[in-house]
Amino acid sequence: MRATPFLRNVGPSVSAALRERVRRPSMLKKLTSPEALAPLFKNDDYIGWSGFTGVGYPKCVPTAIADHTEQNNLQADPATKRKFNLFVGASVGPEVEDRWAHMDMRVNSQKKIIGKEVSKGINAGRIEFADKHLSMFPQDLTYGYYSLKKQRGDPRKPLDWAIVEATAITEEGHIVPGASVGATPEILESAEKIIIEVNTLVPNLEGLHDIVHSFAPPNKQPYLITHPSNRIGSTAIPIDTERVVAIVESRQPDNTGTNAPENDESKAIAKHLIHFLSEEVAAGRLPKSLLPLQSGIGNVANSIIGGLADGPFEKVQVWTEVLQDTFIRFFDSGKLDFATATSIRFSPDGFDHFYKHWADYKDRLLLRSQQVANAPEIIRRLGVIAMNTPLEVDIYAHANSTCALGSRMLNGLGGSGDFLRNAKLSIMHTPSSRPTKTDPTGISCIVPFASHIDHTEHDLDIVVTEQGLADLRGLSPRERAPLIIEKCAHPDYKDSLKEYYDRALFECLKSGAGHEPHILKNAFKFHTNLQEHGTMKIKNWD
Amino acid sequence: MRATPFLRNVGPSVSAALRERVRRPSMLKKLTSPEALAPLFKNDDYIGWSGFTGVGYPKCVPTAIADHTEQNNLQADPATKRKFNLFVGASVGPEVEDRWAHMDMRVNSQKKIIGKEVSKGINAGRIEFADKHLSMFPQDLTYGYYSLKKQRGDPRKPLDWAIVEATAITEEGHIVPGASVGATPEILESAEKIIIEVNTLVPNLEGLHDIVHSFAPPNKQPYLITHPSNRIGSTAIPIDTERVVAIVESRQPDNTGTNAPENDESKAIAKHLIHFLSEEVAAGRLPKSLLPLQSGIGNVANSIIGGLADGPFEKVQVWTEVLQDTFIRFFDSGKLDFATATSIRFSPDGFDHFYKHWADYKDRLLLRSQQVANAPEIIRRLGVIAMNTPLEVDIYAHANSTCALGSRMLNGLGGSGDFLRNAKLSIMHTPSSRPTKTDPTGISCIVPFASHIDHTEHDLDIVVTEQGLADLRGLSPRERAPLIIEKCAHPDYKDSLKEYYDRALFECLKSGAGHEPHILKNAFKFHTNLQEHGTMKIKNWD
Repeated sequence: MRATPFLRNVGPSVSAALRERVRRPSMLKKLTSPEALAPLFKNDDYIGWSGFTGVGYPKCVPTAIADHTEQNNLQADPATKRKFNLFVGASVGPEVEDRWAHMDMRVNSQKKIIGKEVSKGINAGRIEFADKHLSMFPQDLTYGYYSLKKQRGDPRKPLDWAIVEATAITEEGHIVPGASVGATPEILESAEKIIIEVNTLVPNLEGLHDIVHSFAPPNKQPYLITHPSNRIGSTAIPIDTERVVAIVESRQPDNTGTNAPENDESKAIAKHLIHFLSEEVAAGRLPKSLLPLQSGIGNVANSIIGGLADGPFEKVQVWTEVLQDTFIRFFDSGKLDFATATSIRFSPDGFDHFYKHWADYKDRLLLRSQQVANAPEIIRRLGVIAMNTPLEVDIYAHANSTCALGSRMLNGLGGSGDFLRNAKLSIMHTPSSRPTKTDPTGISCIVPFASHIDHTEHDLDIVVTEQGLADLRGLSPRERAPLIIEKCAHPDYKDSLKEYYDRALFECLKSGAGHEPHILKNAFKFHTNLQEHGTMKIKNWD
Repeated sequence: MRATPFLRNVGPSVSAALRERVRRPSMLKKLTSPEALAPLFKNDDYIGWSGFTGVGYPKCVPTAIADHTEQNNLQADPATKRKFNLFVGASVGPEVEDRWAHMDMRVNSQKKIIGKEVSKGINAGRIEFADKHLSMFPQDLTYGYYSLKKQRGDPRKPLDWAIVEATAITEEGHIVPGASVGATPEILESAEKIIIEVNTLVPNLEGLHDIVHSFAPPNKQPYLITHPSNRIGSTAIPIDTERVVAIVESRQPDNTGTNAPENDESKAIAKHLIHFLSEEVAAGRLPKSLLPLQSGIGNVANSIIGGLADGPFEKVQVWTEVLQDTFIRFFDSGKLDFATATSIRFSPDGFDHFYKHWADYKDRLLLRSQQVANAPEIIRRLGVIAMNTPLEVDIYAHANSTCALGSRMLNGLGGSGDFLRNAKLSIMHTPSSRPTKTDPTGISCIVPFASHIDHTEHDLDIVVTEQGLADLRGLSPRERAPLIIEKCAHPDYKDSLKEYYDRALFECLKSGAGHEPHILKNAFKFHTNLQEHGTMKIKNWD
């Protein structure tokens, strides 16, 4: 242990790596061990974490808190039981999240991918989860909307704690994030006490971020971005350094997995989509370089981005939430000009490659806070082409992104609403069917009435499955339904869907109610049949 | 008739009033009669009209076209039949709309209030209606999304015709609109041929409007508005004067009716709301002057604005779509500082008063295009307080604004989605029940599952009925349902709703699917009971 006089009272030693990263000497004096911090967290505390889609989250302190709780058996006794109010921009690594999922909590994390253990807790009624658009979660936090019942402390500070990961701390004490920004700026602004985990394993990513302070109305200002490469902020997050309680050194990597592999279905969907985009260019409705792309997570997204790396479009821009491995290929193909996101979620191999060739990428990439990356203002101004995967879409193009059979949360809403509402082209892509235990096409992703609706018919332009693409722009509901069924439904369900629509049309026109024909008593029959018989293949509509 | 040599070949005479309004001499040469223009309109023509919520629409030419069609019995013969593609920012006057509703047409009008005859045609299957957010309709028109099938003419001009009302034409040939802007700038930009109805009955409203040109991506620019009173455009709509085919003099008033009268219910709702806003001010979450208000149309909106005129807030700002009569009272109370909208829809008496006292109002009021008035960018930046009426809201706060029993179009979507998604406070207000023919409380406006969803749980903060107000901010679905039922449901339906929720919660928790508990086979039982028995009062849930 190096003896540094001014750190005499502090537990851990200051490593050379940490000294290099923490450029403000007074911060080094606050070096503490995670174990020493764990007992400070009390029942009903409001805690914000950095992190987005499993990247850039604090790894040591949350784990120490979970250890402390378990080792002292605190959850067993009502007198010591902790129920925390947790706030995260989007999901964090499973090794942290799963540990916390076993403690009851109130989660205000706007996750696109919810860890399995957390969604189990939500669906079992142990965890309360309020799902909001990614762009709104940070602002609503600063507005005090998530702390209406918190009666103690400074009302301007909705959180008791912020625990955030940094890859460096500047001379001013400002925080350089890791490979995500998410809601970290607003979480830091909202917290009475701040703990910083400085990760010395990950490289110092200074220069990768564009950080803007978001004021509250009536003082909110325009985001003066007209191109994905525009910089409008600073490279680090300004904080009130007096509120920093402790810093911790972390040497743990982001615990990402591999990306979802492509398959024939995802490749077929990508092919339909790239063909459609080519036709839009030919018709003069899109420039040759397209417009900035937003792409979700998953194998279809991978196939699309892979297809673009081999595709006909040059100097493509990307304005999205999360970058996956295929973006490396897209960059390397020379066809991707510039990309901006709020998080980089590469696989471990992807990160290795990325950090090794940092110089090749650093001027073609910016990370922004989720409030900016998902701002309706910018998405609409840039005319983003948005592409996302739902659980199911109905025959009028209402889409379900979150709740299976209307009730069971599978994913959080994420930013799908921010993008689909505001994009110039709002695209949903899904396989036309999914397997159940007993039927390889037991679930139709095209249904008569979506069992939960996150996006409405007013928000979708294009629905595409491996079967084909339905262009819904300017179409009335009566024109949409036959087209979606014809182009997108799986052959196993086409006749059944067509019969539902024809019967509904007949009945509704008869009673002068034919704008969006439905037979409500049968609207969820696909779903109830699935609940009862393990497949959506119904016997008949009677 | 005054002999003006350069008008020798033109039918109608140039009145002194018209000469005063039309300051570009070459335009006066184009003076024509509506009857002479009517035969020019052919089957499948794409026609855009000015007008928004029954104000500022063209009155003479559309009527002449309807007369021409009827007098020549054109609709009877397939060879002469006309099916027009009609584009309007929002509804126009009933005397024009109803005439057109009897011709089959494709309507791309984003109406908050659809005329009865038009909605009949839509629900009967004669009129195709694609419903889109007000903010998006004009941009999608200029993107060519509504003319994908139009194979003729200049592809940059989606419309064959624009027929617009003006209260003046400037020296440059630019158009000064009447008491609405709506989609008029984009309709003019999109049309190959322009017909201008100069209304000399309505005063010249020059100076009332703030007109911005909206470019298409990637050239779209920020709207640099940070306060409702900011001016960022010109006072008239620039046009390509070579495309003006004709001008017509009109002396017909906007055919508005009286505003919906307040009642005990609407007053009770307003009282709950004003109490809530006062508490938000006291808690420091709103400034004392509130934040800019958006208020819908109808008696509840009237009661709220009336309540504010007598209320505790000073220097209030308004950022809304439409101003109704109560705004005159709000202005006159001295409590309304500045208002901006896309349309003024006063009653005939309201307009009389307004035009008489024009000098008192003109510096406290701006009319903007609907693309700006409803821009998510500005609504979110200003932190608007949005208040709208749905048909029904479900126990998780998904709302239906358009389709009764899922199918029958009652209203268009209007700008409700633009405001509810982006407001700082998203409020829906509705009576808790409505009468049917046989039961004075036969329809519950709080239902288990909304039969059509235009706004999702992710978009609503507050639901309020005459029974009470439910503050949903930060709440999970399992917290929302009991609160909405307790605070908002009509007593006749409370037990029934509670039982649905309790049963659903029990069933869903049992199967690990309890995030948003539903029993899909019963989800629409209120609605099917209404269809079968004329009331939503069900016998039981089995």
